[in-house]
This record gives sequence, structure tokens and C-alpha cells, in this order.
Amino acid sequence: MRLVPLLLALGLTGTAFAAERETRIPEAAVTAAAQLREQALADNTGWNVVESLTTEIGPRLAGSEADARAVAWAQAKFKALGFDKVWIEPVTFPKWERRGEIASVLGAYAQPLTITALGGSPAGTVEGEVVHFADLAALEAAPEGSLTGKIAFVDYQMKAARDGSDYRNGGATRSKGPSAAIRKGAAGFLMRSAGTDSHRLPHTGITRFDEGLTPVPSAALSVPDANQLARLAARGPTSIRMALDCGWDGQATSYNVIGEITGRTKPDEVVLIGAHLDSWDLGTGAVDDGAGVAITMAAGHLIGKMKQPPERSIRVVAFANEEQGLHGGIAYAAKHMGDLRKHQLGAESDFGAGRIYAFNTGAPAHARAATEQIAKALAPLGIEYAPDQGGAGPDISPFSAKGLTWGWLAQDGSDYFDLHHTADDTLDKIDPKALAQNVAAYAVFAYLVAEADGDFGSAPRADAAASE
Amino acid sequence: MRLVPLLLALGLTGTAFAAERETRIPEAAVTAAAQLREQALADNTGWNVVESLTTEIGPRLAGSEADARAVAWAQAKFKALGFDKVWIEPVTFPKWERRGEIASVLGAYAQPLTITALGGSPAGTVEGEVVHFADLAALEAAPEGSLTGKIAFVDYQMKAARDGSDYRNGGATRSKGPSAAIRKGAAGFLMRSAGTDSHRLPHTGITRFDEGLTPVPSAALSVPDANQLARLAARGPTSIRMALDCGWDGQATSYNVIGEITGRTKPDEVVLIGAHLDSWDLGTGAVDDGAGVAITMAAGHLIGKMKQPPERSIRVVAFANEEQGLHGGIAYAAKHMGDLRKHQLGAESDFGAGRIYAFNTGAPAHARAATEQIAKALAPLGIEYAPDQGGAGPDISPFSAKGLTWGWLAQDGSDYFDLHHTADDTLDKIDPKALAQNVAAYAVFAYLVAEADGDFGSAPRADAAASE
Repeated sequence: MRLVPLLLALGLTGTAFAAERETRIPEAAVTAAAQLREQALADNTGWNVVESLTTEIGPRLAGSEADARAVAWAQAKFKALGFDKVWIEPVTFPKWERRGEIASVLGAYAQPLTITALGGSPAGTVEGEVVHFADLAALEAAPEGSLTGKIAFVDYQMKAARDGSDYRNGGATRSKGPSAAIRKGAAGFLMRSAGTDSHRLPHTGITRFDEGLTPVPSAALSVPDANQLARLAARGPTSIRMALDCGWDGQATSYNVIGEITGRTKPDEVVLIGAHLDSWDLGTGAVDDGAGVAITMAAGHLIGKMKQPPERSIRVVAFANEEQGLHGGIAYAAKHMGDLRKHQLGAESDFGAGRIYAFNTGAPAHARAATEQIAKALAPLGIEYAPDQGGAGPDISPFSAKGLTWGWLAQDGSDYFDLHHTADDTLDKIDPKALAQNVAAYAVFAYLVAEADGDFGSAPRADAAASE
Repeated sequence: MRLVPLLLALGLTGTAFAAERETRIPEAAVTAAAQLREQALADNTGWNVVESLTTEIGPRLAGSEADARAVAWAQAKFKALGFDKVWIEPVTFPKWERRGEIASVLGAYAQPLTITALGGSPAGTVEGEVVHFADLAALEAAPEGSLTGKIAFVDYQMKAARDGSDYRNGGATRSKGPSAAIRKGAAGFLMRSAGTDSHRLPHTGITRFDEGLTPVPSAALSVPDANQLARLAARGPTSIRMALDCGWDGQATSYNVIGEITGRTKPDEVVLIGAHLDSWDLGTGAVDDGAGVAITMAAGHLIGKMKQPPERSIRVVAFANEEQGLHGGIAYAAKHMGDLRKHQLGAESDFGAGRIYAFNTGAPAHARAATEQIAKALAPLGIEYAPDQGGAGPDISPFSAKGLTWGWLAQDGSDYFDLHHTADDTLDKIDPKALAQNVAAYAVFAYLVAEADGDFGSAPRADAAASE
């Protein structure tokens, strides 16, 4: 209805042939978004939320007592922030827990090593010679049986990057290394942490063991400890002892916690933003992912405080147990598959608290102009439109794979892997100004999507493919 | 004999009235020192020594098995580096050890806290409400009995400084805080680490309990944990549980390990340089004080390789158990008191591995010109002469108190308290170029003192006072 005059006003009549299908954002909404942006930059709700979560709950490993407290915290926080609908949806998953971990070099150079068990590792004590591999490929190239009774040590050093791109290698070492080591006969697996810091704080994270293999104790060394073990191994045969007390312990149920700001004209259509509520147990989950919870909760809150709420609802999801396998995201997608078309678009904040520097959506052609309008509204925040980049955040990805259109607000992750999955992931690492920039970006983005005339292409995958 | 012509040559006849007593350094030695300086800057012996000590021995808490290995390592290293006399002198002290430490917040905000026992703390488990004090003075001002059954938490945040000057406050909190807390009735003592970092790595260090007091478990929180506990305490009454397994366990004997480059004309006169061989148990003792051991060993080694050794001997001492009470320095002073006058001067490197930026000696007036000559030879290393500053390093101080003249080569300690007494004190924190600058400075300094015509005023304190 409003679209054709708008396009005419914008001088876009050259594309008017597509007018009836093209999604556009009304100018009044763009104006309101600019006000929202400035208001968000001056607001400290995001900081207050992450301060509250990290201080009052602290570490919240999925399935733990603290995780249950975090669920209650999130419900209370949504209500306190003015979300008019707040509910929970159960998520059940295998429960893993860490009870203790210790390692030491044996023999002439005896000394302790700082390690942390990888999530999913079994308990166990292993003693054996360390076999050093420069990277995962070197381990995979080792002869069959060559590691029998030994401990594989994959020494790959991740490089820092704004987009965190080398997590590709660091993460692969963690996820594939243990199984590769077992195939060669190894009794244990050690890796240089998938991290870019230089502190005695190892990085945990989930690993998986391939079907048919018997899992072995698997852990990460802090970066300085990896340096040390590499130096020792270079001197000659080096044996270590590693004792992990950890493992799977039945099933646990946690919850996706959901808060909604109800839309004024299309309340059943939603813009989905979110982050994950769980954290690893070593730190207080500030950058992973308290920041994301805070950014999206604060963005929803600020939209809810506007004089006129947007046409569609803003749904903020604090996902359960992302860390051990996207359990919350998978559960959300399964539960809401029937409502896929009611979801305009989804975006997750799960890459720390650094400034957002780039934006895109996975919307099809008929919503590119609207995507560009959003990009223009984000530009004053120092955010570039990156039309060929991006993808779904982890908890959005299961739904995105089924057809949900993703939004992508890329955070500067230059220091993210200094902190990721370590004890050092604490509140002091968050810059309140950068956090506010994130809140402003999410608020503007979610509001404009909610105000758009037309959709962003979310549709069950088969339909989506057919329509293009 | 050589002094008067030298002074004439230098145009310093205005001070020639003092010529017969004034200490000066021959020009030939100044020239040789310039060559030594350049050679040292290009040499990697210092790096190799600290790499060897931190890698092969690692943590070496005084009295531990690793400490004994460090003694053997130091003897072997002195020999390998060409020191022509190598010997050990026993040092006996009470042995303290750490076996475990854990703390957690109790109640609604339950979560773990990262702590480390202060050296000298008794074992014990205490549970109680935390009472927050901004600093030591606030604790000392608390009413008598006001902490009965509670845990004092002194929250002083040390500031970074090139000269480490705020260790005055951080160190005082650690050394005096526990006794002050006990006097108010406290069942336990917690402090924000005496550190300037922001990592989950608490700083240990020795504490003492005043006579007549019953020691209580005493520990330091990492800086982020102190932030966290302060936030929790600000929210309302906060109780914690702290369990320390540590304590004194009889006597141990370790050794001052000494290497000497024998002087060519006055072999019984020595220039004393050194560092301490022991470390705390958390890190590998790289900046505290593997660097100092490496700097002084490498300086002695390079002097020993000169075509013509200096007139006096260069004595390098790797002191035993500095950390728990300057035991090695006290033992050295006691054993060598009769040879005090044979010691030209003493200097210890025990402030990390940062570049040296200032120099001075505690020499009396008759050796100021020689001190200035040394300063001039150090200037190309970016070292300023600071005639009103300085003092004896820790292990030199007991001997200095008895009359040994100190040399002072001030290191840039801007980041020293990021690492000091933490698990993060590891090799990767040392800049090889800065280390080489230290070696060059110590080599030049020790060589020129050893070549001086005249003394630097070392004399038993009563005599020294009488002569000024």
C-alpha cells in the first residue's frame, strides 16, 4: 500500500516494475530508527544486564545448578525490562561436567602443566610419551598405530583476526583432533589451546568422538604451556601424566528463555534476535555470551520503550546450551518450524562485545533494497554494508538451514580468542561504549525489519528454493 | 699509579687535589667496555640461560625437589659458561609449601573464586561473611573485634609504574594485612592481588604474622575475582568459603650457587652481581628471577671471554630462597662479613627483564667520578645517570646494611606486576632484545668496577660512617 508512493518519492521508479513484491521500509520508520540509535548509544541497559548476569550468576555450564539460576534470572530480567510476553521452552541434552584436571611433565624436567579438559572428554589418567604434531594435518598423516600408548600433542597456534577466521583451524583441531589421535592408537590427546592470548589460562570447548571410537582423555594446554611442552619435546623424549575427572552424566533439561515486545499490527510476525544464555564453566561468560544476551535484551527493551512499537513483534531468545551442540537453537527450530514464515528474519549476537563493523542479511533479491536501507541506518555507527558476506549465528543456523533468513552484524573479534572459553572471560573485558554500539545496531536493525513493508524471504527451504 | 696522568689527560686537574684518594677507571678499560657492550647486545647467552632454567626446571619453590635441581643446574651452567670457580654455600630456612586452594561464594550468587594462598599462610577452611575494605588503612581503622568470625577483604588496586613504586602499597597489604585482620578478630584474610594485570591469575608472595597472633588462612584473589567479590559485597552481605591446604613443614637446606671469573691482578677482590635462583611455584620464574640469573650469568660469561680479564674477580651469585625472606642474601652477608672490604660493590638484578633506564651507585664522594664514568659507558644503552636515586637489590640489602656499596641498574617495571608471583611468569613474557640490553649493562658495569683504580667505599658500617 505505501510502497509505490515511497519508491516514487525516493526516485526509485526505475525498479518500480518489481514494486508489488519488493520489500521496503517506510521513511517514518527510518527516521524513528535514527532516534532509537542515538538513544541506545547513550543508554547503559546493555552494560547493566551483562553486569547482572556475570556477577549474580557467573559461570553457567549447561545443566548445572547455575544454569537453572540463569534461566530464572533471564525470565526476571525480561520482565523487568518491560517485555510483555515472557516464557520458557524446554531443551533436553546430555549433561557433561568438569570436576578436576591436572597434568605434569615426568622425569628429569618434572613440572606441572596447566590444562583444561575439552568438553565431552571422558575421565581418565594417562601417562605416556608426547608426540608433537605441528597441526591437525600432521597428526592425520601419522602412520596407523604409530601413537599406541602415547599422547598426541597438536601444537597449532591460532592467529588473531578481526573476523576470527582462524578459528576454522583452531576449532577443527579441537573437534577432529581427538578422533584422529585415537585412530593412530593414542591413549590421550593434548592440543595447544585454540586461542590467541599468552596467559596460563587454557581454552576449553566441545569436542566429539567419531562413532565406533573409544574416547580418550582430551585436553588443551594454555598457550605458554604449549610453548613449554614444545620446547621440552624438542629436547628429547618427553613423558607426561594427565588426569582428568570429568564426563557425561545422564540427561539434563534447561530452557530457551524468550521475551517478546508485542507488535502493534502484526503481533504474530516476529523478528528474532538472540544469544545464548549458557557459558563454559571456567569464566563468567561475559564475552561468550553474556554480551550477546545483554545486547539483544537491551535492544528489545529500547524498542519496547518507543512511543509507537513496531508493526511486528520483537522476539529475544536466550538460547539454552549452545556450547555443547547448539541444543537450544536446534530445539527452537524444531518447535517453531510451523511458524517459519512468521519469522521475518533471525540474528544472533555470539562473537563477543567488540564493535560491529559490517552488516548484511541473507534476504533474497526482493528484500535487498530493504537490507540496503537498514545498512544506511547503521552506517552512522561505523558499520559497513557487506553485501557478499555473512551468515547465520550458531543458534540461528538450525532454523536458517530450514529456511529462516539470517541477519549478520559482524563484531570485531580481534581479541575474542584471547578470552573465548577461558577463565579470563569476565566482565572487565567488555568495553561499555562498544557494547552500547552493539545495542544500538541491534535495536535499529530489529526495529527496521519489524517495520518493513514486505518480508525478507523466510520460507521452508524447498519453497525458498522454488521461489528463486 | 695511573690515576694522576689520567686525570691530567681528562682535563680534570681541578679535582686533582683529591687525586690520591679518588677512584677512577682507566681509559683503556672504558674503551674495552665499549666493545664489551656491543658484543653483549649481539649475544644471546642471556636468552639461552633463561630459556634453559625456565624450561628444564620450571617452578622452583625454595626447598622443593625442583629447587634442588635448580642448584645442580646453576652449578652446571656456571661451568659451561666458563666460570673458573664454581661453588655452593648452604642456606637453611623453614620450608613452606602449597598443596591446594579453593574458594567460592556461598548462597544465592554461588560461584567459584580464583585465589592463591599467600606464602606463609597456614592451612585451613573458613566460611564467613566478607567485610570489604578499600585499603589496608581502612582495615586498620576497623573497630576491635568487629571482624570476629568474618573474612577481611582488602581491595586495594595497585597502579602500574615504571619503577614499581606502588608495590609499596600492594606489598604492605600482603605483609601487614593478615595480622591487622587477626587483631580485629578475623577468621580469614583475602586481598586483591598485588598486581596490575586483568587476568584470572592471582599473585602470591610471602606474608608474615606478627608475634603472639594465631595465623589465619590468608590468600589473594585475582584482579577480576576481586572486582567480582567487590560487586557482590556491594549488593549485600556476602559469605564465602575458602579452603587452603598449605603450610610450613620443617626446615630445608638449599644453596647459594656462586660462579667466579678470576681477576688477573687482584683475584681476591670481587665485584658481586647476582639474582635469586628460587621462584614462587605458580609460574616458571622467568621475570622473577630467571631473567636476573640469566643477565648476571651472561654478563660474567662475556667478561670471562674477554682477551684480558679484569683486574678483580667477577662473582655471580644465584641466591637461595629470596622469596620467603632473603634467606640467601642474609646467609651470604653472614658468611662473607669478614671479606666485606674485598667486595668492591654489589648489584642484584631482580625486577624482571625490562630495559634498564637508570643507573647509580651508593658509593661515597671519592668514587663519584668513577660512578660517572660508568654512567657514561652505559649511556649508549639508553641508561640515564640518576645520582640521587637507587638502592640495594633485595639479596644485596643484608650485606649493604653492613657496609657493602650497592650498584643500581633500574629496570623498566611497567609490566612487572602484571606477572610477578603469578602463573603467567613464563618465558614468553621476556623480550630477548631487552634482556640483551640488561646483559650489556651488567657486563659494562661489572667490568668497569673490576678495573677501577681505587675502591667504591665498601667497609663495615661503623668504619664507613667514620670515614664520611
